[in-house]
Amino acid sequence: MQYPKFLRQLIDALTALPGVGPRTAERFAFRMLEWPEGRIEELAQVVAAIPDKLGTCETCGCLLDENGCRFCPIDARDPRLLCVVASPKDVFAIEGTGEFRGRYHVLSGLLSPIEGRGVEVLHLGRLKNRLGGVEEAIIALDSTVEGDATALYLKRELESMDIAVSRLAFGLPMGSPLDYVDGGTLARAFSGRNTF
Amino acid sequence: MQYPKFLRQLIDALTALPGVGPRTAERFAFRMLEWPEGRIEELAQVVAAIPDKLGTCETCGCLLDENGCRFCPIDARDPRLLCVVASPKDVFAIEGTGEFRGRYHVLSGLLSPIEGRGVEVLHLGRLKNRLGGVEEAIIALDSTVEGDATALYLKRELESMDIAVSRLAFGLPMGSPLDYVDGGTLARAFSGRNTF
Repeated sequence: MQYPKFLRQLIDALTALPGVGPRTAERFAFRMLEWPEGRIEELAQVVAAIPDKLGTCETCGCLLDENGCRFCPIDARDPRLLCVVASPKDVFAIEGTGEFRGRYHVLSGLLSPIEGRGVEVLHLGRLKNRLGGVEEAIIALDSTVEGDATALYLKRELESMDIAVSRLAFGLPMGSPLDYVDGGTLARAFSGRNTF
Repeated sequence: MQYPKFLRQLIDALTALPGVGPRTAERFAFRMLEWPEGRIEELAQVVAAIPDKLGTCETCGCLLDENGCRFCPIDARDPRLLCVVASPKDVFAIEGTGEFRGRYHVLSGLLSPIEGRGVEVLHLGRLKNRLGGVEEAIIALDSTVEGDATALYLKRELESMDIAVSRLAFGLPMGSPLDYVDGGTLARAFSGRNTF
């Protein structure tokens, strides 16, 4: 039996969420039918307001809050260090460690040799505008095909401009038993071994 | 580091979805930031329209579609059989089997001895109004504490009104190897064994 047309629309709209297939979207939709109207209205309003309320900084690409960009104002952060990340979410993760007091640059995309995304997605001009006074660029990208390709490309570009380039260390996660770690990670941990 | 206040609101609103904890809600929220405005607007509109577009039938509790209730119109379905379910979603699952041509009654809640939900949640009056001409009531509730308690209570009530009461069979799922089935199911399959 077919679902009513509007329910179909709701389910389709929900499958756009990451990791949500048709079965999960159905579960979401039927649960929403049981919600009080106030909760439905709240979710609708908060979703509708995303484009207004959650902009990203045109300079660094970080998420803006009510007071604008937290990272761009002069003096707020060490201008000699620039951390390059793939998404505004990564900024929160790195801030959570308390290890970094420099500035951030959120890329607008990653190179993808497979999906044919070339250097134009990086908007290098936007990055180059930010390099005045930068001594070290820290590449904080995933270890995926896209992350590796982008990291290598940025390293070449930035080193040609006399900026030191480093990348986050790959190795064993803290507290993880050795035999729980996948082979790729273990290989990276070996090749990156340190004296201690 | 704290998320901007509006992002917090969005994440909180998303955790109301079933099975969505704070981490998943964060993932949803950050993905939504990357959506084109059109998609955001579509989701907001379709959510906002739920109370208008997805009502349930006041008589049987099934989901209404554009043309009203598909099950209540006289002659549409066999009036001697009434299938009692817990949610409008179950109606679609049962219709999908093609096994049932009677009518449905969606309960407005289940008894819960643990959470203290008593018979008032069943809205028995609404069910009793529907029993004219019914010869058999088929209880199609989960095998949970709530489902079992409700099934037993309804059985007593309906049998006292001279209606035959049956419940869906519990047993091995089709195609499932015996040793993949949990002990409770296997016990039900044993006690419910048939000649064949």
